[in-house]
Amino acid sequence: MKFTTYLRDGAPRLALVEGDMLIDLNDADGHIPADLRAALAAGIDLRALAAACAEADAARVPMAGARLAPLVPEPGKTVCLGLNYFDHAKEGGREKPDYPWFFFRGASSLIAHGDAGVVPRVSPRFDYEAELAVVIGQRVPRHVKEADALQYVFGYSCFNDMSVRDYQKRTPQWTIGKNFDATGGFGPVLVTADELPPGATGLRIQGRLNGEVMQDANTTDMIFGVAETIALLAEVLTLEPGDVIVMGTPAGVGQARTPPVWMKAGDTYEVEIERVGLLSNPIVAEAQA
Amino acid sequence: MKFTTYLRDGAPRLALVEGDMLIDLNDADGHIPADLRAALAAGIDLRALAAACAEADAARVPMAGARLAPLVPEPGKTVCLGLNYFDHAKEGGREKPDYPWFFFRGASSLIAHGDAGVVPRVSPRFDYEAELAVVIGQRVPRHVKEADALQYVFGYSCFNDMSVRDYQKRTPQWTIGKNFDATGGFGPVLVTADELPPGATGLRIQGRLNGEVMQDANTTDMIFGVAETIALLAEVLTLEPGDVIVMGTPAGVGQARTPPVWMKAGDTYEVEIERVGLLSNPIVAEAQA
Repeated sequence: MKFTTYLRDGAPRLALVEGDMLIDLNDADGHIPADLRAALAAGIDLRALAAACAEADAARVPMAGARLAPLVPEPGKTVCLGLNYFDHAKEGGREKPDYPWFFFRGASSLIAHGDAGVVPRVSPRFDYEAELAVVIGQRVPRHVKEADALQYVFGYSCFNDMSVRDYQKRTPQWTIGKNFDATGGFGPVLVTADELPPGATGLRIQGRLNGEVMQDANTTDMIFGVAETIALLAEVLTLEPGDVIVMGTPAGVGQARTPPVWMKAGDTYEVEIERVGLLSNPIVAEAQA
Repeated sequence: MKFTTYLRDGAPRLALVEGDMLIDLNDADGHIPADLRAALAAGIDLRALAAACAEADAARVPMAGARLAPLVPEPGKTVCLGLNYFDHAKEGGREKPDYPWFFFRGASSLIAHGDAGVVPRVSPRFDYEAELAVVIGQRVPRHVKEADALQYVFGYSCFNDMSVRDYQKRTPQWTIGKNFDATGGFGPVLVTADELPPGATGLRIQGRLNGEVMQDANTTDMIFGVAETIALLAEVLTLEPGDVIVMGTPAGVGQARTPPVWMKAGDTYEVEIERVGLLSNPIVAEAQA
């Protein structure tokens, strides 16, 4: 089952995705929040609601014409992992980490499928990172065991963790280079966990710049898998419904190439994950002063 | 003028602080959101509303008996600076930074004045950090000039950026050590910017463990001041109403002492900033498995 968040009159709405059509779940039931995080937090059984809608004669609108929102428009937390594919750690001259390099993204950095990623005025060193995103469905008990962790995952989506490399490296803290406005592509759809292998392993993940394959790997290559990552985070903090974990990128990023490849206005970057979806973001330049 | 967020029947309410009494602003006007971030985002003139309430015969309740919430219960972003006092950078063996070491805190780490900071089950290396917190009042234009930056500040408060030092240093990314549940003390009150020197400079900042002075400095010693920090962030991202900037801690932290000092159950840490307030958090231990 697939869900998305789309905009109607500028406001986000929850929708079931059926083939290339959307069924508006807020039209189907006026009581559910129009925000995936709020709907999950309220404990609404979205899969049951969606199944009922799919069988009923609910109105369908074509997805192709819809403007989407970031899949979760404002997650409570967006936790990202750095260096979670060994080939990517190597291309950056790093060792294989023995603990994830966690950093956070703020919601103000997130954009939808189809929205433009913005090359900032202050730097041209604008790089792509194709990643698997995990959306938490229910509050994760602190200290959950790895073997029990996956039951709290609602589903999976695609993410482009666009990075401003010189800001990322101005200090050892990467956070600022990962939080420019309009740099976190997130969507287009969420595929519920029951439709994928446990932890979304074994899926091909590709990143393409203007159609050319730049990143090509498999989620099995992640150093820390989804269940282990949730268990590690649960040592520290409470993962809440709608929280997002972004699982790191494989090799092939622009900064590791000779010469480096930076995204510029007019480019398009696509993140495609087998059975999860295809996220596409055109690139524009921030207006100059 | 001073504001706070307190709990009534478990739900946050906005209040004006008048001496040692609270005036409930949501009682005074049922239309304003009970959340400081939402009220600021809605463009409500809290100072005018509060002034009207203070003159009217509004009901007062004693602050001493009130249970508070984190001053902003769920900021969109909480941006923290590391190493922003030179003496503290030095005690950690670091150079004076030429750019702030930014990292983010998630809202799930925040606690109120009077709430317990929790020594996590997985580590006893639980340290204190007395800091000045800045609350953004209006959306900050991207690329705002330093000279114009302070007009977007609604006010200032106290913060205890409690840190789990071994997790902070497991990788070069400090984020995870700064995001344990119940480790970000925030409050008790916000003092509006008009009542303080520009950028809240020239204020004594003290941290006390069980009454003993551990940190004692002046906000003038901050390497990056509030206006410059806002201008640097505005190169990167949009600061929104209710966003919080936590300005870094002066020397005297527990990990830099010989032998190191760690907070443990039964301790109390106080952060006091001249003219801003006194934040006090008892320390408890997380329950063992």
